[in-house]
Amino acid sequence: VATTTATDTTTPALDIDPGTDVACHTVHGYISDKSRYLARLKRIEGQARGIHRMVEQEKYCIDILTQVSALTKALESVALGLLDDHLRHCVMDAAAEGGPVAEARLKEASDAIARLVRS
Amino acid sequence: VATTTATDTTTPALDIDPGTDVACHTVHGYISDKSRYLARLKRIEGQARGIHRMVEQEKYCIDILTQVSALTKALESVALGLLDDHLRHCVMDAAAEGGPVAEARLKEASDAIARLVRS
Amino acid sequence: VATTTATDTTTPALDIDPGTDVACHTVHGYISDKSRYLARLKRIEGQARGIHRMVEQEKYCIDILTQVSALTKALESVALGLLDDHLRHCVMDAAAEGGPVAEARLKEASDAIARLVRS
Amino acid sequence: VATTTATDTTTPALDIDPGTDVACHTVHGYISDKSRYLARLKRIEGQARGIHRMVEQEKYCIDILTQVSALTKALESVALGLLDDHLRHCVMDAAAEGGPVAEARLKEASDAIARLVRS
Repeated sequence: VATTTATDTTTPALDIDPGTDVACHTVHGYISDKSRYLARLKRIEGQARGIHRMVEQEKYCIDILTQVSALTKALESVALGLLDDHLRHCVMDAAAEGGPVAEARLKEASDAIARLVRS
Repeated sequence: VATTTATDTTTPALDIDPGTDVACHTVHGYISDKSRYLARLKRIEGQARGIHRMVEQEKYCIDILTQVSALTKALESVALGLLDDHLRHCVMDAAAEGGPVAEARLKEASDAIARLVRS
Repeated sequence: VATTTATDTTTPALDIDPGTDVACHTVHGYISDKSRYLARLKRIEGQARGIHRMVEQEKYCIDILTQVSALTKALESVALGLLDDHLRHCVMDAAAEGGPVAEARLKEASDAIARLVRS
Repeated sequence: VATTTATDTTTPALDIDPGTDVACHTVHGYISDKSRYLARLKRIEGQARGIHRMVEQEKYCIDILTQVSALTKALESVALGLLDDHLRHCVMDAAAEGGPVAEARLKEASDAIARLVRS
């Protein structure tokens, strides 16, 4: 009987042998700091809710913009942390192995950096 | 008897005669689009919650970074909309009146623009 | 005899009565600080030349990237200054007059701000 | 007699054994594309000169701002290219070796990414 495999649409379509890649997928770089990231993201969620409330209460535009800038900076900082962890673990490990996996990981990281720089 | 004045920390310290400024404070520029802004901010809050969940479930870093970039872009777009509304109403109205209020509003808007460009 | 009209591709196609617009075109906002802007742009040109030289001499990538970041910041700062001057003069003057010119100037300024925030 | 040591302010203070590091310093990642980078930087220098000329001739502010945004984007694109090359060569090579050099290279790259994202 054929079994269907649920495909996770968010996983980038890297043509990588899962065997080689297992360390990166099971032990993500950020796992050590996981609770700290969760706390920061909880705070970010609260900031987003706060901005929603400010618009609802028709607060002064400039004050809302100040909060949007603060939220953007907080997000940026989380992104830079995750990226550093990712380079430090997944990309460096792949680099140590070399070959197409290393190349794929690097391309993927560079694309993510470009999206961050341009966003 | 000395009276204490409650200071609202979110209100910018513009030394503006409230009488002159009343139109700007009561009829904010974004009020016409308020429900649309609220819907966008609701979505942004959901995006923030989604990123929190991705870290919790230890999703792949690059996928998380993609979502962070998307959230940053959504925030940027809300900020540009609010700023346009603010210029279009508060700043333009102040400009039509001229004087120190116009100057103060402009300085305030320029500072907000600088924060957005730099964040 | 048909006459050809030279079109200046850099002038935005605002359908504005030249009579109304003359103050903005002849007395640009930045004119008072013109020599200071020219000095800053001269320095920016020098920074660009310096980066070219660093690549030519195969300097260390990270040092080149540091100079690129510094140049980007310098450009950003000039742009924010020009924008403030523009709002302060052309846009505010148009606002004081009101009508389609004010609307056109504002739209144009908002678009320029969006390009700066996104670049 | 005390001797003074000339310090090169542009060289990052990595405490790396020069022997280990020699490949990265002599064969920079961007060397293969060097002529293409030089051409792009020549063009960027020309753009900077063009903006200087526009201010000198008192061109319309918005047009100048458009050129500043274009220049910023061109610089960003060069920076992302150099960074990709750097990760692909210096950082990956260091990663394959591991140890403090790998760690130092990674930290340095992450810091450069943060400067780019924030500038």
